[in-house]
Amino acid sequence: MTALEELFGIQLPIIQAPMAGVQDSALAIAVSNAGGLGSLPCAMLNSEQMRVEIAAIQAGTSAPFNVNFFCHTPPSPDPQREKRWCEALQPYYREFGINPDATSAAVQRSPFTSETADILEELRPPVVSFHFGLPPPELLARLRSWGAKIVSTATTVDEALWLEVRGVDAIIAQGLEAGGHRGHFLSDDLTLQPGLFALLPQIVRAVKVPVIAAGGIADARTVAGARALGAAGVQPGTAYLLCPETKTSAVHRAALMSEAARHTALTNVFSGRAARGIVNRLMRELGPLNRAAPEFPLASAAISPLRAKAEQQHRGDFSPLWAGQNAASCCAIPAADLTRELAEATVT
Amino acid sequence: MTALEELFGIQLPIIQAPMAGVQDSALAIAVSNAGGLGSLPCAMLNSEQMRVEIAAIQAGTSAPFNVNFFCHTPPSPDPQREKRWCEALQPYYREFGINPDATSAAVQRSPFTSETADILEELRPPVVSFHFGLPPPELLARLRSWGAKIVSTATTVDEALWLEVRGVDAIIAQGLEAGGHRGHFLSDDLTLQPGLFALLPQIVRAVKVPVIAAGGIADARTVAGARALGAAGVQPGTAYLLCPETKTSAVHRAALMSEAARHTALTNVFSGRAARGIVNRLMRELGPLNRAAPEFPLASAAISPLRAKAEQQHRGDFSPLWAGQNAASCCAIPAADLTRELAEATVT
Repeated sequence: MTALEELFGIQLPIIQAPMAGVQDSALAIAVSNAGGLGSLPCAMLNSEQMRVEIAAIQAGTSAPFNVNFFCHTPPSPDPQREKRWCEALQPYYREFGINPDATSAAVQRSPFTSETADILEELRPPVVSFHFGLPPPELLARLRSWGAKIVSTATTVDEALWLEVRGVDAIIAQGLEAGGHRGHFLSDDLTLQPGLFALLPQIVRAVKVPVIAAGGIADARTVAGARALGAAGVQPGTAYLLCPETKTSAVHRAALMSEAARHTALTNVFSGRAARGIVNRLMRELGPLNRAAPEFPLASAAISPLRAKAEQQHRGDFSPLWAGQNAASCCAIPAADLTRELAEATVT
Repeated sequence: MTALEELFGIQLPIIQAPMAGVQDSALAIAVSNAGGLGSLPCAMLNSEQMRVEIAAIQAGTSAPFNVNFFCHTPPSPDPQREKRWCEALQPYYREFGINPDATSAAVQRSPFTSETADILEELRPPVVSFHFGLPPPELLARLRSWGAKIVSTATTVDEALWLEVRGVDAIIAQGLEAGGHRGHFLSDDLTLQPGLFALLPQIVRAVKVPVIAAGGIADARTVAGARALGAAGVQPGTAYLLCPETKTSAVHRAALMSEAARHTALTNVFSGRAARGIVNRLMRELGPLNRAAPEFPLASAAISPLRAKAEQQHRGDFSPLWAGQNAASCCAIPAADLTRELAEATVT
C-alpha cells in the first residue's frame, strides 16, 4: 500500500479522471466500487444536479470518491472579441442555416464559490480535487473541517510548488499528453508545459506530497512506467471514455474507435482554453489554436448550435472530441474491469 | 542482456545521442569504453574531418560505436524568403554593427550520399544511425555489405512502421521532450508528434525490432521508466552536454547550469527546422516558430554572424542552446560515470 492508497482510503492507486460533460455518478460509482477512486466532475452541474449526483454516489458505494471543480477567474465579457469570433464562424452558420442572433448560452462552467462549499458541507465528500489552481484559503479551510483531502493539478514544477505551499494533500502531474483541458494556472504559455516523461520525475523530486501521473495512462504498462518515474498513483481519463458507464456521445465514441484517434492536438476553439482533442474539421479549419477565440469559457456559446446541428447529422466536426495521446488504445469494457486491469502492474 | 545489447555487441543499453556541433570522437570513445554505444555526429563534418574522427574512435576504443548522418533533401534556394528573413534580422545586424552582405555561409549540413558510403566502406563502422529518414536502398545495401547495423529515428508510429518496412535493425522513438532537431520525415506537422510517454509504448506495440527511447532520459529513474514502457534501450543526449569530453560552448554550458534550462521550446529560427532548445532572446523575439525562416539548413547562415558576435560578449542570445525537457538535471561528470549511472536501473 502506497502513501496514496492510505491517504484516500482506497485499494488501488487508480484515480478516475473527472471528465465534465461525458460522465456522471455512474462511472464514479463503478470505479470506487472496484477499489479505485471514482470522480464526479461538477464544473458543469448546477447546485441541484450536484446534490443529486453526489447523493447517488453515496447511495451507490460506501467507498471513498472525489468531486472535482474548476477554479478559473470568470472573464469579463469582451463584445468586440466575441463579435470577431462570431464573424469567423459565419460561414459555418450559413452552411447549417443557423441564425447566430438566436443562439442561446451554452452550459456554464462555474468556478468553485462559497455556495459550492455550503453544499459540500452538507454532503461531506472525502476527496475534493481542483483544476486551474485552488479556491481561496478560507474556502479550502471549510473543506478541511470534515477532513476532506485536497488535490489539484500542476502542468509545471512551479505550479506544483505553488500547490504544495498551499497545503494540498496530493498533486496531479498533468503531462502534455493528457486529454481535455490543460490545468495550468500560473501561465498560459504552453511551451512551459513538458511531456509527462519530463514533468513527472521533476515534480516528484520537487515536492514531498504524493504525485499522481496524468496524461497517456492507458494500460498496465503505462501505469508501470509512471510508477517507475516516481508516481504514487495515476489518473487515467481517456481510457475510461468507452466504458458503458460513461455518457460519451456517439460521435465522440466513433472518433475514439477510428483511425482519427491517433491524431490529437491542443485547441482553444471549443472553450477558449487549451485542451487536447481528436483533430476534427473545426480544429483543422480555424485552429487548432486561434487568437480570436473568446476567453474560457465564453468561446463555447458560439460553437454550441453548430455542434448540435452537426451531431444531428452524426458528424463530430464541431464537437470537442477530448482525448489524450494514447487514445487509440481505448477499450469498451466495464469500468471496474478497466480499473483492475490498470492496477495489475501495482499488485505485488 | 537484451536484444539490443546483443544486436550492437555492447554491455549497457545506453546509446549516447549524436549531437552535431557540440561533440566529436572524444565523447564517443568515453561512452563506448564504458560499455555503452558512443556516437559520432557526422552531419557537419567534411570528408577529411570524418576520416580523422572515425580513425580516432577506432584508435581510442575496441568497442562498437555509431556514426550518425542526416537524410534531409537539400532545399532549393528561395531568394525571396531568404531576403525576408534577412530583413527580419536587420535590427539585430544594426545592433551588432554587422554588414549583412558580408556574411559568409555557415557550416553546411550535408545529407548522406554515395561519397559518404565510399568513405564508410573503408572505415567500416559497426553501427550507422540516421536522422530525418533513411538514404536510398542502394546506399543502405552498401552499409549492409560489412554487416553494419542500421538505426533511424521515428517521431510517430507511422514513421516507425515506414522504417521497419525498410529493414532497420532498431528504431529510436524520439519523444517531444527531446533536445535538438526533431527527426520527423513523413510530415512536419508537430501536433502529430506525441510525448515519449505516449509515443514509446505505441511504437513498441507496432514494430518487432528493438525500440530505443529518446527524450527526457536524464538519470537511472528515467531509464527505468523507459524500460517499463517497453524500451530495449535509451538514447540520452542532453544528459551528456556538460561532460568534460564534449565541446559544448561556454554560453551553452552556462545556460544548462542556470534556471533558464527549465524552459525549452521547439524553434526553427536557428536552422529552419524544428528543434528543442533553451528559450533565449532570438527565440523569444522572432519565434519560437517563424514562418519566414528559410528551409533547413539555410536559416543558419543568416544567424551565424549574430551568434559569433554575441558569444564574443559571452551572451547566448543568438546561439542554439539545444536541450531537452529534463535539461535541469545535467551534471558535469565524466561521460563514463554518467553512462554507468544511467545504466544502474538495468543492471540486475
